[in-house]
Amino acid sequence: MVNLKRKGKKSSKLIQDGLDHKGDVCPFCEGQEEATFPEVFALRENGSPQDSPGWKVRVIPSISPIFGIEGGLGKKGEGGIYDLMRGVGAHEIIIETPRHLNSLHLLDTDQIELVLQAYIQRISDLKKDKRFRYLLIFKNYGKNAGASKIDHTHSQLIAMPITPKMVKEELVGARKYFAYKERCIFCDIIKQEKLSGKRVVCENDGFLAFCPFASRFPYETWILPKRHQCDFEEMSNEAITSLAQILKEFFCRLFHCLGDPSYHWFLYTGPNRIPRRDHWETLCKDFHWHFEILPRLGKVAGFEWSTGFHINPLLPEDAARKLRECSLPELFISSYPDPPTRQ
Amino acid sequence: MVNLKRKGKKSSKLIQDGLDHKGDVCPFCEGQEEATFPEVFALRENGSPQDSPGWKVRVIPSISPIFGIEGGLGKKGEGGIYDLMRGVGAHEIIIETPRHLNSLHLLDTDQIELVLQAYIQRISDLKKDKRFRYLLIFKNYGKNAGASKIDHTHSQLIAMPITPKMVKEELVGARKYFAYKERCIFCDIIKQEKLSGKRVVCENDGFLAFCPFASRFPYETWILPKRHQCDFEEMSNEAITSLAQILKEFFCRLFHCLGDPSYHWFLYTGPNRIPRRDHWETLCKDFHWHFEILPRLGKVAGFEWSTGFHINPLLPEDAARKLRECSLPELFISSYPDPPTRQ
Repeated sequence: MVNLKRKGKKSSKLIQDGLDHKGDVCPFCEGQEEATFPEVFALRENGSPQDSPGWKVRVIPSISPIFGIEGGLGKKGEGGIYDLMRGVGAHEIIIETPRHLNSLHLLDTDQIELVLQAYIQRISDLKKDKRFRYLLIFKNYGKNAGASKIDHTHSQLIAMPITPKMVKEELVGARKYFAYKERCIFCDIIKQEKLSGKRVVCENDGFLAFCPFASRFPYETWILPKRHQCDFEEMSNEAITSLAQILKEFFCRLFHCLGDPSYHWFLYTGPNRIPRRDHWETLCKDFHWHFEILPRLGKVAGFEWSTGFHINPLLPEDAARKLRECSLPELFISSYPDPPTRQ
Repeated sequence: MVNLKRKGKKSSKLIQDGLDHKGDVCPFCEGQEEATFPEVFALRENGSPQDSPGWKVRVIPSISPIFGIEGGLGKKGEGGIYDLMRGVGAHEIIIETPRHLNSLHLLDTDQIELVLQAYIQRISDLKKDKRFRYLLIFKNYGKNAGASKIDHTHSQLIAMPITPKMVKEELVGARKYFAYKERCIFCDIIKQEKLSGKRVVCENDGFLAFCPFASRFPYETWILPKRHQCDFEEMSNEAITSLAQILKEFFCRLFHCLGDPSYHWFLYTGPNRIPRRDHWETLCKDFHWHFEILPRLGKVAGFEWSTGFHINPLLPEDAARKLRECSLPELFISSYPDPPTRQ
């Protein structure tokens, strides 16, 4: 049992003001850079100065951080059976566009590529910090997914001092499979899904999107690189382009098929091996980075919480067929029209 | 990966009618026995006939069963990597009182004892079925916990063909601790919690209620028998009385302290060892049955779903102090006044 003591201050009244007054100023829009904490990273054109307009993707520290960046882990025991450590980590917000758009599927693929490049930059940078064991990128979209009040499209990056339980389960499972078969389980899943085709949503040269066997949620979808790769940040430029395209297509399908669904998405990449090279040296063979997208259409109740099993009323084969066969209007082919920027 | 194919028919329009028409007939009230499936068990006075008034606790099959009772497991593979089995199991509803009361804390302790006796009877009976690996009793109370439309207080019993993931994690953890220390981890937790006292909510001769270290949710509480025991159904009559008293006190504290909170509760008992005596023969030493109560005051978002970790804004020490120091009105000491029975 590990208790991560949370360190964080609810401050920066600027953002709160920006949101709470009349909802007419979005702190994530271009031109509102002073309404947030100073940026930790930005993709900018023409050498425009930090915390000013001219950016394409902007990364800022979270206003309500789950972890605090300073200090050591301070591990200690309590009463012989319990373990405590400080909540040391980083919690950043990746603002995916300077324009006031509320969803990733409204961005054009060039812009999505920039978002992915920002992910890579931040992951590569934070991996150098030896206190961090895992870097997680996730997104909550919509009320039912617990999204924040700021609807300007953004994702969150968390650097953590321990590998998350869910990720560890996948790592351990993948390793056991590799030990038995000498093959990557994710590569085998890709092969099997391509062969049967019934759970495939869409694919392109580099990536496969499919509703996994025994999905937890209706329309749950995983997106995997077809080429075996442990770490997200090792993607080639060609793969980034390919990933941007499939993300655009998948989210257009999700929105056209289901309206405006709430969802979580997670990027599960290999853990940070710098602090523990001994432990993870063989990992590159058996883990395979991927996205998991969990639409949140219903409630999760006692059965799920008590068992860890999920009741999914929709077969993944049916979900995949609906997403695959949903006809996309030309909106998808051309770019979305320019909505007015809220300032 | 296991896909449990669900078998169940949404039928019995009687219950649906009883609920949906005007909400003035509760199918779980005494006198409405015909509005439900025939009972599988009841505690009755004076030898009153089945499916008629005169019962104290009544157990019926669920109208929307997660599992179906008939047939074999039908295990098979798909494509070499996936495993399927049929959703064979039982799903029963334990109606905790013939009167229309909406919460367990409104029952007097004699009635709570009868509920616990019904749990024991059903668990003992279903354990004889060798297809079932685990028997889980749980309850969803309140809208935020995904409770059903029927607010007449009831719990659910599920007999499953596999041990739930969450339970297995506790079993494996307890076994590893036992292998290392030759002591039960739950017994050690009781000892530690009694020593420090800061997370204790209430206790009596037989039981301890405390907010566990590194709780997942605000006011999360576990109730453990002080005497080491693996299986719930092996409780003595004296222990049943003691458990009824602490449940009454704990839920009165929860309701007086928090208003009318939504919560889940689970009974985690030892798995069914009849089908696999080889595997679980040493289990009695290292597992220790208990209740877990998870109030649902906020939302669970992407961080929790992606990591398996929980952000709890309230320290368990503070939660326990509030529950412990909350002064209970005489309502708790005397019985609750008789509310009108809805018929």
